[in-house]
Amino acid sequence: MNKNSSNIMALVPNTSNKRETVCIFGTGDFGRALGHKLIQSGYPVVFGSRSTQISSLIPKDAEVLSHAEAAQKAAIIIIAIQRQHYNFLTSLAEVLRGKVLVDISNNLKINQYPDSNAEYLAQLVPGAKVVKAFNTVSAWALQSGTLDASRQVFVCGDDIEAKQMVMDIVRALGLTPLDQGSLLAAQEIENYPLQLFPMWKFPILLSLGLTAFFFFYCLIRDVIYPYVYENKDVSFFIAISIPNQICPVLALILLALVYLPGVLAAIIQLYRGTKYRRFPDWLDKWMLCRKQLGLVALAFASLHVLFTLVIPIRSFVRWRISSQTISQVLNNKTEPLDTTNAWLSDSYLALGILGFFLFVLLGITSLPSVSNNVNWREFRFVQSKLGYLTLVLCTAHTLVYGGKWFLSPSSYRWYLPHSYMLSLIIPCIVLVVKFVLIFPCLDKPLTRIRQGWERNPQYSE
Amino acid sequence: MNKNSSNIMALVPNTSNKRETVCIFGTGDFGRALGHKLIQSGYPVVFGSRSTQISSLIPKDAEVLSHAEAAQKAAIIIIAIQRQHYNFLTSLAEVLRGKVLVDISNNLKINQYPDSNAEYLAQLVPGAKVVKAFNTVSAWALQSGTLDASRQVFVCGDDIEAKQMVMDIVRALGLTPLDQGSLLAAQEIENYPLQLFPMWKFPILLSLGLTAFFFFYCLIRDVIYPYVYENKDVSFFIAISIPNQICPVLALILLALVYLPGVLAAIIQLYRGTKYRRFPDWLDKWMLCRKQLGLVALAFASLHVLFTLVIPIRSFVRWRISSQTISQVLNNKTEPLDTTNAWLSDSYLALGILGFFLFVLLGITSLPSVSNNVNWREFRFVQSKLGYLTLVLCTAHTLVYGGKWFLSPSSYRWYLPHSYMLSLIIPCIVLVVKFVLIFPCLDKPLTRIRQGWERNPQYSE
Amino acid sequence: MNKNSSNIMALVPNTSNKRETVCIFGTGDFGRALGHKLIQSGYPVVFGSRSTQISSLIPKDAEVLSHAEAAQKAAIIIIAIQRQHYNFLTSLAEVLRGKVLVDISNNLKINQYPDSNAEYLAQLVPGAKVVKAFNTVSAWALQSGTLDASRQVFVCGDDIEAKQMVMDIVRALGLTPLDQGSLLAAQEIENYPLQLFPMWKFPILLSLGLTAFFFFYCLIRDVIYPYVYENKDVSFFIAISIPNQICPVLALILLALVYLPGVLAAIIQLYRGTKYRRFPDWLDKWMLCRKQLGLVALAFASLHVLFTLVIPIRSFVRWRISSQTISQVLNNKTEPLDTTNAWLSDSYLALGILGFFLFVLLGITSLPSVSNNVNWREFRFVQSKLGYLTLVLCTAHTLVYGGKWFLSPSSYRWYLPHSYMLSLIIPCIVLVVKFVLIFPCLDKPLTRIRQGWERNPQYSE
Repeated sequence: MNKNSSNIMALVPNTSNKRETVCIFGTGDFGRALGHKLIQSGYPVVFGSRSTQISSLIPKDAEVLSHAEAAQKAAIIIIAIQRQHYNFLTSLAEVLRGKVLVDISNNLKINQYPDSNAEYLAQLVPGAKVVKAFNTVSAWALQSGTLDASRQVFVCGDDIEAKQMVMDIVRALGLTPLDQGSLLAAQEIENYPLQLFPMWKFPILLSLGLTAFFFFYCLIRDVIYPYVYENKDVSFFIAISIPNQICPVLALILLALVYLPGVLAAIIQLYRGTKYRRFPDWLDKWMLCRKQLGLVALAFASLHVLFTLVIPIRSFVRWRISSQTISQVLNNKTEPLDTTNAWLSDSYLALGILGFFLFVLLGITSLPSVSNNVNWREFRFVQSKLGYLTLVLCTAHTLVYGGKWFLSPSSYRWYLPHSYMLSLIIPCIVLVVKFVLIFPCLDKPLTRIRQGWERNPQYSE
Repeated sequence: MNKNSSNIMALVPNTSNKRETVCIFGTGDFGRALGHKLIQSGYPVVFGSRSTQISSLIPKDAEVLSHAEAAQKAAIIIIAIQRQHYNFLTSLAEVLRGKVLVDISNNLKINQYPDSNAEYLAQLVPGAKVVKAFNTVSAWALQSGTLDASRQVFVCGDDIEAKQMVMDIVRALGLTPLDQGSLLAAQEIENYPLQLFPMWKFPILLSLGLTAFFFFYCLIRDVIYPYVYENKDVSFFIAISIPNQICPVLALILLALVYLPGVLAAIIQLYRGTKYRRFPDWLDKWMLCRKQLGLVALAFASLHVLFTLVIPIRSFVRWRISSQTISQVLNNKTEPLDTTNAWLSDSYLALGILGFFLFVLLGITSLPSVSNNVNWREFRFVQSKLGYLTLVLCTAHTLVYGGKWFLSPSSYRWYLPHSYMLSLIIPCIVLVVKFVLIFPCLDKPLTRIRQGWERNPQYSE
Repeated sequence: MNKNSSNIMALVPNTSNKRETVCIFGTGDFGRALGHKLIQSGYPVVFGSRSTQISSLIPKDAEVLSHAEAAQKAAIIIIAIQRQHYNFLTSLAEVLRGKVLVDISNNLKINQYPDSNAEYLAQLVPGAKVVKAFNTVSAWALQSGTLDASRQVFVCGDDIEAKQMVMDIVRALGLTPLDQGSLLAAQEIENYPLQLFPMWKFPILLSLGLTAFFFFYCLIRDVIYPYVYENKDVSFFIAISIPNQICPVLALILLALVYLPGVLAAIIQLYRGTKYRRFPDWLDKWMLCRKQLGLVALAFASLHVLFTLVIPIRSFVRWRISSQTISQVLNNKTEPLDTTNAWLSDSYLALGILGFFLFVLLGITSLPSVSNNVNWREFRFVQSKLGYLTLVLCTAHTLVYGGKWFLSPSSYRWYLPHSYMLSLIIPCIVLVVKFVLIFPCLDKPLTRIRQGWERNPQYSE
């Protein structure tokens, strides 16, 4: 009753089973888990093992034979053994001739060996057809039936028929095979499960660096300066006030960095007069991690929102407001409402809210299942039009926040401008250049270049 | 090391390649990108081109031949040419007889031509089997390997075997083919990439209209009235106070409009005594965009939450609270706690929080990947039971917000009631009718009608 | 123009139709909807019915024949009839011999009959090959083309070829077949659409129980105690103050309960010296619903955030702050800033914000479409490393919140400690045990056990 839907399963069908026997070499964790799942899906399974003593851990319906005997029973042999024990397979070369060997091994480090395990296997048993598969699936997930993480199985191999047979098995297990080409892809497939967010490395390192810089910048301006000149201890600013300066600054800078490479690419294309020359490598890499940059920017923006909304709950703020009120009373003067101030305060808040709202919308659209359901025109509309609108709103929010004190000399401490001024540099550059690029005299040639036109065509069709 | 997982790829397999040669007519952007991807996936590719001079942009492993020569080498020919250049294909009619022609073209406008490009192609080369495919995929996405947007490829064609061959290629490229039926579907498939959120048009236009109406309504009541009668300048209300009236009003009205068509449908079915007659067209259309209406309502509700939470940060609000405190001090009176007030204030906030929380839950369930993992009973439970609970909570939130001033004459300005009163009309109607429909004397016949019973059966099985 | 993309469809292809005829027994809602969809996808459809009078509701392009005649025309017969009418099929045994019968029926209750409908059908018509499919799809969704809920079709059957034929049809309709094994799985497949969030039952019941307990606990301490001893009516605390105590308490306890079973499992494995013995059943079940526990905890945390952020808007809070200010003025004393207080207040807020931020990140990663795009190493990193960091931050947030009053006698009312102290028990236990398990003397043997090492090996390979 309390079972998970993915647990829906059945024992071996007892009639008209036409699925081909699968042989598994090795009775370790993964071999057993895979055997179990194969039996559930209707495949007869035979294990090849050094010792044919049947362990209670091996699925009941599976046979356990010697390696040679087991191999003879099946056309497909799954090698659930570690690379360092592959050597003994050379002695079985005769039996394995023409068979499909499925390499499911993983390494402990990226690029641990000069060649991939699958290529090494193919070289050891030249008569067999080697297919790489299943290395991205976890034994625990196979066993428990809860595939919370990926169901994708990368498959590669030189023999297309062998690959097709393996992909059919993958599908029968309820997983999604992804053909990655020839066995040359095995190296990358073996590295894949060892990766830890490779696309996020640059955005996260960049934001850590910027965070550290702005932390010390704000520390000097907002904590050390008042301590030195006014002997005020406001070290508690480290907890909220300073993070709430760093977060919006980083959100704005990173968001601008999402749109900067597009602007640079347009300038390069205009300058070269063709789109058929590759961009510099750094620009290519930058363009590929724009989504990640944007999401990190969104994370900082969300933190900024939370830090801002708790302001009225902070005991320091309550004390400050209360003492301002008290001092007004004691001085027996009532301040009238400053309408300009009210306008400035309300509009920077409203701009910030709208900017953040659009930013969250952009983030939702980048969810894989949402972006899968929009066509390219819609995707570009959201990511480019709405994206620029977000940048405009957030930049305006920061500009209006500065308000009357913007560029006033009293806001400089030790000649250091307020951090929000520094954060405005890149966004303003991006917006100005983008604005210039919209002018017809630049937009028209750019559109033509992007449609394939060349100023100095060198290659004719 | 810094590579994207989707970049996992390999060169042409050098052994036992059994994949059939694919021919591509046209060496433009999309033809080249597709050729590149096909070669990566193990297909031999031959380009058919007017000039057989090899450009450096064409993938190295591809041959470039004349159109006729190239066509003879393959069973499948991808036509990567624009519709206006299709004419020359008639001269190749003999060579193309029995071949599979894949039309990948797109138009610039919806319904640009009376017939679809694929049907036009089928008519030009009657001996060939035309299949429409790939038009929803972008060349840039194919090339960069980052398929952030959709991986879905709509396929249609009259010949089922030809369609199957094309769908196999689509799968081999790591994309998802979706069979859309015969070539008659080509028109819609060609229009698809040109669409810009067609399902969102009505909800967005409706909400823009309502926003404009309520903006001027609030402007008159809250800015112009005090200016005329009290000569107070509160024009800064435009930034936050008025948006924060419009957003909740629209959220509530749109949420009620999500449930209104269901209620209307029930009344129509009860009146007609059968479910086998079609609803009026407007009701059908309305029911199909309920999800979009609900999500727009959620957007307004989220904005309302943000606008509300910044209230204590607004400089106007701080000034008002401070001057109230000061005037209390100067009048030397301390107000005791008004418990009724505290109850009202706390309960409308609590109702709003719970309503918004359920609303966000509804939004999350409508994410494609989440709704894919629930069964129909669960989906209906969330969307109907939780949906109505959300509507009840939000309506109660608005009613309690009115509190003591509800319907008091002083809240009318120029005979205009407060905007939140207007927003209550539709939700209350929906809830009252729904409440009536729950009574057994109406619920029982409705359930029977929905199970297929007819009061005056006209068609017998 | 206003059409949905999923409505892309076409009429019967008029040429070279090679799809096999499908027969449907029964002309009810689901039979007709399926027939309509099959015709759209290019299948010739013939209905078998008691009366061959053609109703206007049956798709135009379908034939309607007697059951026997219809069955002879097709290899696949979809039984769109309710189980109680299956009996008449025995009379057709001769005609149905060797045919594929697709059972699409559902029951009204879980485990309504001792055997599944599909097995009952197989027993009634022993000569036919029975396949269970389509029971999870709704007729309304098929007809309207808006498959908002699941596209998954569970398929099971003893005959693998028959199953394959049915799965091909499922794919052709744009749905996703999931092979669930032999016909024994039919019982679970038939129960599936009747389930209502089975994995959520335990977490929701647990949190409801805890909510009730803490509600009365807080009611006694915070409403009844002041009423009895100070004769103060603060019953309005029920609306916000008490929920805002319950929510964080439950969020913290439930989050700790997500990590407790992992810690218990480690202790059991260390004690037993092997990973090859099954955990007790309750621990297995607990581990399978950790994701749901975590998401319920996140829901409570989100409510806590909303309840906290509205604090400054509450009329009670405004009154309290204003009267504090007034009493300060009247006593003519200005309080200096208490730096310790400012530090405590700011750091517990900052810890809470960071903890909530990471918590939301964890929630986003558990969205199916996101977790599908990360590999196992990344998934474990997020769910384990970031998860523990979240637990540490949230526990620290609660500890600092207590601040100076932590364990001070005045915070006990009727010997009852403040609810947040109770909430700290489980998280602190989990964190302390986890901290102990990190020490090399325990971590090393645990890692070896998890790699397959056994202290007292009983089974040799």
